[in-house]
Amino acid sequence: MRVVQKYGGTSVADPERMRSVAEQIARTHRRGDEVVVVVSAMGKETDELLRLAEDVAGGDRPGREMDMLITAGERKATALLCIALHAMGVPADSFTGSQAGFLTDTNHTNAKILEVRPDRVAEALASGRVPVVGGSQGVSTERDVTFLGRGGSDTTAVALAEALKADACELYTDVSGVFTADPRLVPDARKMAHVSFDELLEMTAAGCPKPAMRSVEFARNHHVRLHVRSSFTWEVGTWVTEEETMEQAIISAVVDDDSEAKVTIAGVPDRPGIAATLFRRLADAHVNVDMIVQNVSEDGVTDISYTAPKDDLRTSLEITQALADEIGATGVTSDAGIARVSVVGAGMKSNPGVAATMFETLAGNGINIEMISTSAIRISCVIAADQLERAVVVLHDAYGLGS
Amino acid sequence: MRVVQKYGGTSVADPERMRSVAEQIARTHRRGDEVVVVVSAMGKETDELLRLAEDVAGGDRPGREMDMLITAGERKATALLCIALHAMGVPADSFTGSQAGFLTDTNHTNAKILEVRPDRVAEALASGRVPVVGGSQGVSTERDVTFLGRGGSDTTAVALAEALKADACELYTDVSGVFTADPRLVPDARKMAHVSFDELLEMTAAGCPKPAMRSVEFARNHHVRLHVRSSFTWEVGTWVTEEETMEQAIISAVVDDDSEAKVTIAGVPDRPGIAATLFRRLADAHVNVDMIVQNVSEDGVTDISYTAPKDDLRTSLEITQALADEIGATGVTSDAGIARVSVVGAGMKSNPGVAATMFETLAGNGINIEMISTSAIRISCVIAADQLERAVVVLHDAYGLGS
Repeated sequence: MRVVQKYGGTSVADPERMRSVAEQIARTHRRGDEVVVVVSAMGKETDELLRLAEDVAGGDRPGREMDMLITAGERKATALLCIALHAMGVPADSFTGSQAGFLTDTNHTNAKILEVRPDRVAEALASGRVPVVGGSQGVSTERDVTFLGRGGSDTTAVALAEALKADACELYTDVSGVFTADPRLVPDARKMAHVSFDELLEMTAAGCPKPAMRSVEFARNHHVRLHVRSSFTWEVGTWVTEEETMEQAIISAVVDDDSEAKVTIAGVPDRPGIAATLFRRLADAHVNVDMIVQNVSEDGVTDISYTAPKDDLRTSLEITQALADEIGATGVTSDAGIARVSVVGAGMKSNPGVAATMFETLAGNGINIEMISTSAIRISCVIAADQLERAVVVLHDAYGLGS
Repeated sequence: MRVVQKYGGTSVADPERMRSVAEQIARTHRRGDEVVVVVSAMGKETDELLRLAEDVAGGDRPGREMDMLITAGERKATALLCIALHAMGVPADSFTGSQAGFLTDTNHTNAKILEVRPDRVAEALASGRVPVVGGSQGVSTERDVTFLGRGGSDTTAVALAEALKADACELYTDVSGVFTADPRLVPDARKMAHVSFDELLEMTAAGCPKPAMRSVEFARNHHVRLHVRSSFTWEVGTWVTEEETMEQAIISAVVDDDSEAKVTIAGVPDRPGIAATLFRRLADAHVNVDMIVQNVSEDGVTDISYTAPKDDLRTSLEITQALADEIGATGVTSDAGIARVSVVGAGMKSNPGVAATMFETLAGNGINIEMISTSAIRISCVIAADQLERAVVVLHDAYGLGS
């Protein structure tokens, strides 16, 4: 069996955790499995490097140099992990993204993988060694070092698993799998033994932090078997697989997210092109708009509301206010005190009552719904942030998700 | 004018020092000079990375992985310096040793440069940019990352200056040049305006810590003009040049060193090959033996004494004791309480009284000489460590070196 194991930053945060991870890799190697390791930077190192860059120079910082800086974190981690493995008698070689054959575009700080040619990784495997690859990095078509962005190590692992035709890709993290709700909010939240790609994709889009959405998308498109599991308990986690033919659970999980703020532009003249202009400008400013709701037009004017990351609120407000002035809208307001609760389930497609249950449950608990958006297998409601925990608990209960 | 500027770890120890260095580079660039920068890891970072490796695994650590780990330090520094330059409006690109074309052998942790092909560095220069190269690193003939060893950044700078046909190589450090003696020991020690390669080479061999001896050797062999100067005061430092034809100063400097210990093997049968065996074994164990003294044979037995770094004392003793047992020598003793004082001067060749002055001066001040070694332009004496400071002061005075 050939397996790719990816260890996140918390899994290798200090020398002790590093040794613990090395032991797991050694066990896998001793079992006779071929193991390829992908590792993130230790603990909060990426944040520390970013802070160092801020201390050196405020304002605009060149992407090429930020990538050279940030990728030093994974480089350290790969070398230290190999040193730990070597001390346990396991032959191991570190590889940078470039050495592992990750060719990317030139979009620094958030590069896209163009091709993976893991020749050196395959050679190491063939000679009985454990290749340890730096996550989230590659080399661009201009021969510069590139970073794939935060959470990019998951994508590195999945792309390597695909290129090496691995039997599975294990994403080790600080939670023991994918849960029916955040166990910190819902005491009887249950770890799911399986989840479909489509469901996990909706969950990550709705705020489930791990694994990174991009990696789930890649795994789904390339049929890579994912296993989300813990590097602290080492227990079996959650398998992510193709949608199964058997009866689907109507609702699989409740997901919460309080990272976004809401912006509303009111009194917008109801003529074509205004919404398009707004969201094009926001996109050009790299504001990642999530939900969009436009009210029914009344007396020739309408309201447009959208949610976007709180970090982008200032930019969002500036762009929206500028447009409001141009088109003579009556005003722009924002609310950072909102949150989103979502229910996700592949079985909801054929069960029309799911949305009604959600709205009734929230209303019955005095929770007001401010915005609604849906996909084929997800319903999301924006509510007041201080009612989020209660909403997750009552919905988890209403759909009978507890263990 | 084309200049290579090398900044050591103390010169870029924190964001403030990093900005100060960036300002100097920006000034050079604005003057219209072509400037290539070589930078070491920030402050004590290399030591911290070594400690991290020790925390992860004791004992033997693979050189390939140590190099991958250590070179992360210079990578961070190059990127941060470019970020600082960019904020000052100076276009700059960071390059790893590999990107800068440093091809090395596969001798990890202490690799030797085989060839420098700085195509990308030259391209950056040609387009008006400032290339910032990671010091002490390269890529091996096996395509692995290599480290040139401690102090290797000086060598990187000198090799780049040679490959790029630079007009000068400026080695910035935390002292303002090369002095006639350590100014901490001798208050009226004088900064030398010029020093010859041969003298500086002897001084670095005798304990003068900067610049790294290997880089001085390279610069001498390839006729690279060196300028040793301070990144704290920015004043003119010491130029290192080919030996001049004009009258040489008899003595240029007094150099002190307390990093070594002395080992003596007594009662050695006086037959050929014993010394050869001893020093071959020490060399094989990477013990860097410095001075060697063998006494005149008496009654068919002799004593051999040598000095070696204190860090290697345990290894040295083990090897020497083992040989003593084999050959029936009477005993092995060691003394870590020694130091070496040297006088260096290109003019001493034609002045036979120099050694006599040194011995008389030491004797006249009650300082006993335990070992002596000489080269054409240097005389070194091993004395008791607690008399070192006094020895430096009286010799500096005896040769009239003060300002």
